[in-house]
Amino acid sequence: MNYQSILEEIESEIQPLFNEGKVASYIPALANVNPNQFSMSIQMFDGTSFGIGEVNKKFSIQSISKVFTFTLALNHYGKELYKRVGHEPSGNPFNSLVQLEYENGIPRNPFINAGAIVTADSLVSIYKDSSFKNILNFIKKVSNDETITYDEEIFNSELEHGFRNYALINMIKSFGNIHNNIDDVIKTYFKQCSIMMSPAQLAKSMLFLANHGENPLTNECIITESKAKRINSLMLTCGHYDASGDFAYKVGLPGKSGVGGGIVAIVPKKMAICVYSPRLNTQGNSLIGTKALELFTTKTGLSIF
Amino acid sequence: MNYQSILEEIESEIQPLFNEGKVASYIPALANVNPNQFSMSIQMFDGTSFGIGEVNKKFSIQSISKVFTFTLALNHYGKELYKRVGHEPSGNPFNSLVQLEYENGIPRNPFINAGAIVTADSLVSIYKDSSFKNILNFIKKVSNDETITYDEEIFNSELEHGFRNYALINMIKSFGNIHNNIDDVIKTYFKQCSIMMSPAQLAKSMLFLANHGENPLTNECIITESKAKRINSLMLTCGHYDASGDFAYKVGLPGKSGVGGGIVAIVPKKMAICVYSPRLNTQGNSLIGTKALELFTTKTGLSIF
Amino acid sequence: MNYQSILEEIESEIQPLFNEGKVASYIPALANVNPNQFSMSIQMFDGTSFGIGEVNKKFSIQSISKVFTFTLALNHYGKELYKRVGHEPSGNPFNSLVQLEYENGIPRNPFINAGAIVTADSLVSIYKDSSFKNILNFIKKVSNDETITYDEEIFNSELEHGFRNYALINMIKSFGNIHNNIDDVIKTYFKQCSIMMSPAQLAKSMLFLANHGENPLTNECIITESKAKRINSLMLTCGHYDASGDFAYKVGLPGKSGVGGGIVAIVPKKMAICVYSPRLNTQGNSLIGTKALELFTTKTGLSIF
Amino acid sequence: MNYQSILEEIESEIQPLFNEGKVASYIPALANVNPNQFSMSIQMFDGTSFGIGEVNKKFSIQSISKVFTFTLALNHYGKELYKRVGHEPSGNPFNSLVQLEYENGIPRNPFINAGAIVTADSLVSIYKDSSFKNILNFIKKVSNDETITYDEEIFNSELEHGFRNYALINMIKSFGNIHNNIDDVIKTYFKQCSIMMSPAQLAKSMLFLANHGENPLTNECIITESKAKRINSLMLTCGHYDASGDFAYKVGLPGKSGVGGGIVAIVPKKMAICVYSPRLNTQGNSLIGTKALELFTTKTGLSIF
Repeated sequence: MNYQSILEEIESEIQPLFNEGKVASYIPALANVNPNQFSMSIQMFDGTSFGIGEVNKKFSIQSISKVFTFTLALNHYGKELYKRVGHEPSGNPFNSLVQLEYENGIPRNPFINAGAIVTADSLVSIYKDSSFKNILNFIKKVSNDETITYDEEIFNSELEHGFRNYALINMIKSFGNIHNNIDDVIKTYFKQCSIMMSPAQLAKSMLFLANHGENPLTNECIITESKAKRINSLMLTCGHYDASGDFAYKVGLPGKSGVGGGIVAIVPKKMAICVYSPRLNTQGNSLIGTKALELFTTKTGLSIF
Repeated sequence: MNYQSILEEIESEIQPLFNEGKVASYIPALANVNPNQFSMSIQMFDGTSFGIGEVNKKFSIQSISKVFTFTLALNHYGKELYKRVGHEPSGNPFNSLVQLEYENGIPRNPFINAGAIVTADSLVSIYKDSSFKNILNFIKKVSNDETITYDEEIFNSELEHGFRNYALINMIKSFGNIHNNIDDVIKTYFKQCSIMMSPAQLAKSMLFLANHGENPLTNECIITESKAKRINSLMLTCGHYDASGDFAYKVGLPGKSGVGGGIVAIVPKKMAICVYSPRLNTQGNSLIGTKALELFTTKTGLSIF
Repeated sequence: MNYQSILEEIESEIQPLFNEGKVASYIPALANVNPNQFSMSIQMFDGTSFGIGEVNKKFSIQSISKVFTFTLALNHYGKELYKRVGHEPSGNPFNSLVQLEYENGIPRNPFINAGAIVTADSLVSIYKDSSFKNILNFIKKVSNDETITYDEEIFNSELEHGFRNYALINMIKSFGNIHNNIDDVIKTYFKQCSIMMSPAQLAKSMLFLANHGENPLTNECIITESKAKRINSLMLTCGHYDASGDFAYKVGLPGKSGVGGGIVAIVPKKMAICVYSPRLNTQGNSLIGTKALELFTTKTGLSIF
Repeated sequence: MNYQSILEEIESEIQPLFNEGKVASYIPALANVNPNQFSMSIQMFDGTSFGIGEVNKKFSIQSISKVFTFTLALNHYGKELYKRVGHEPSGNPFNSLVQLEYENGIPRNPFINAGAIVTADSLVSIYKDSSFKNILNFIKKVSNDETITYDEEIFNSELEHGFRNYALINMIKSFGNIHNNIDDVIKTYFKQCSIMMSPAQLAKSMLFLANHGENPLTNECIITESKAKRINSLMLTCGHYDASGDFAYKVGLPGKSGVGGGIVAIVPKKMAICVYSPRLNTQGNSLIGTKALELFTTKTGLSIF
């Protein structure tokens, strides 16, 4: 299949959507990005890649970071982790507190904020002061790229304006499901959200999940096949908050979005993809990114279904 | 792969679970089945099949019927149907009324009771008095079997004891999302739930979804490829009520369960499966059936992820 | 105090509100009343009365009937009744199903629809086929008026359009908190809502609650002092659905509203009042009636606080 | 009426309850009080008083402080305050976050934690750094007692363990309904909760509410009659969290409880009462205190209904 020409078709077909959706505005550092960007990168197992737009320009990965931290935590804790965070779709917005109150502070899944905060706490229990360093090292390893870092301005912006996340962590703590100091955990969480990566880097970083746990570029085993498949299933059922069903319905690939405007997706045994476009739909996912991926699976027939 | 010996291994490994879970008790007609049954049928595209247990013994398909009625309705209405029923996981029990109240009588998806009732209503709008006949004929067609019928006793039992479903349909009607007479719709719905099929029949009946819309045994096109994939994605994200995420996580196949104890699942481009065992877990899905399918994908590596 | 001139002041001051609010429209029989009516009746213990507007013109009492049925049921069952219906404000709309689902079919209080339906069921358990006759006889007794009856057209309208109430009763039945046949109970409930009374009749009918259980006009003991006070407290905390706090805050009297546009209120040891005006606020209470009672307690200082 | 002998009767009748209920345990400083205390103080308008138990022994007033801060804020802001905090019963536990999420960060009433925190914020907007000093001065004024202060240990305990309250304030802040620095507001709130007063002091401090806004001992006007009545109505409908209806039903007086074990109540135009006993019922109100007040109104007939 000629992926490059498919990317070009997609770029042309998404043009009419450039006046829809809104850039994330809850922190100033995100509100100021150029809303009309679009880039998409495909990374194959053999190292070849395809791209459209500025595939090497970095953006704030935000919730895409939850895939990395959950991988790390699942690798370390295995099934023990399920006692503290579930793997069910929540049926609620990404930052909802409602279910936490009804369900004793156990978040539904690791891809809503509450679940990612518990995951971060579980990593702080292991890595203490060097938690963020270990997270970053893991991302460097899976993306085979030592240059990745986080954005200090975005991090500070989250610290200053992340009231909803402070509400979540305090709520969970009140149920005893945060084991470490709140400040340590929330800083780790905000830093992971502030990591900057390009579409090309992110596509590469997801290859191990497309390849049943082994990075096909380095032949390094990152996680077992069984766990890799489970992370993929979780991306499918919970990767897009309260639009996860819609994403599975229209795109048909495991994927994870971030409010920064990025979406990663994987085609099992074939490739990893990252699309970036910062205008968001009402559920907080990249509007044009979602459409681009829908066009991609329609044109290629690569849905997992 | 030697599927027959895999089925035998599974049967042996699920034995310790025969004292867990409870048979559905909300209607007497279901409460009286022998709880210790287990059977499993695999149907390949070339007509070969594998089975363990009494694969030709019929049971009440219950919510598995929702796959057939949604297929019929989607075929007829296309995207119009989405205005009346969504395709998101609900994050709530199968018979919950809570979201209906907050979301103006639009059910989250067609596989919870509320959504299946709206789907039935949409079919009554088309087929009027012969709605159930058309549903049954469709099932006969996709399973290539003229002998399928429903159980009068179970139907009457639902009519007499189905208070929660009456509550749902009246609630939806109060929001204007039921267009026909309540009695006509609920009878159609209860009849479809009372249909009796065997694991072998059900496995066959799902082949068209495994084969992108075309029945591989008859080469008949049942639904477009795109719609078939969407139905599969819906089975994955919403097929097991409030345990859909867990099923996707552990089994990794699109599937649909019924409180009668059956679960159907498909492996895209390969096969369709049906497992039957009437003891249910707390979410209302076959406890042993779920475990059997988890063992199946673990042993075969046939998860879609 | 010159109550007659106070009523005249009130009538003059509420005039600007005659373009606000909306007549109940969920059944055609109510939607067709003249929206611009206003009448108010005060009934003293010694038999004297004051009135403004058409105080002898009958209207549909709707939920005001819940005061009578709860009195009857409390008289018969005493504390046993609390096992089936609570006495807490619900914090939810009058016809909400949400709490029923979370609280096992036990309605929060007898003045929301769910609670009144359980109350009606408790009366059907006592009076069987003559339940409505007994309710009507009780109202005739407390109002000392044999002419009271119900409106067949409104009753039929409720039967035909009362989907939300059918949803409620089926929901409660599914939890086992309806002991009789659904049709018998719902017809009793719809009939009590369809009773027609005038402001003068309703004011008289509430005197026993203002007088600690004894009708001051006939010296008949209707209910014990302790129970009368409890019914009054319930009118204060729960009498106006999700605007009960606001009514207590602004009016400061125990009262009960109906979507027909009536509100009754009592001043303990002094008088009973009924106001009628069919335009409703967003919580389903008479908009002008609420304002008139607020003006009344402001002018007279007769708030219980 | 011989109030002293009534108090003695009550003390005798509540003895069997001394093994029920549990002392508040969410902060260590409260968990360590002797659970078997009981004292009750009645304060008349003419300065006479009645008491049983250690009526001069101080305890942590906790949520009773909300009456004072709401009085101060209502006095300053009038109706403007209603835009930021309502006056409806919540139908939810005292520390629930659920309604905040559904209702845009506007708490239902000033007597649940969320509402009291918004009230504290409104006072910080006025008094800045001297907010707590002004609150304390107001309490000294209404109780005519210069010795009142707060407990540093309890305050620090709240600061350290009050995760749920931190969750609430951050949640409200995320909706823009906290105008000041979170730390400043929460410290003010925790300090007001840590104030220590005796039953005798608290009973005196409530006299102005029993007397339509004027302190009968000093003839000082604290608040207008209209506002005093509204505060009383709010105590009746919302003073005991999710047991407010039950308290109104059984006791029939405006009152406010605190998890420290105190309850204040007023009899309009007659007296103010304070009862103290630290064992709490499941809704967080003094179990024996509630029973004592129920016995009091039963014996005296002083319910407002």
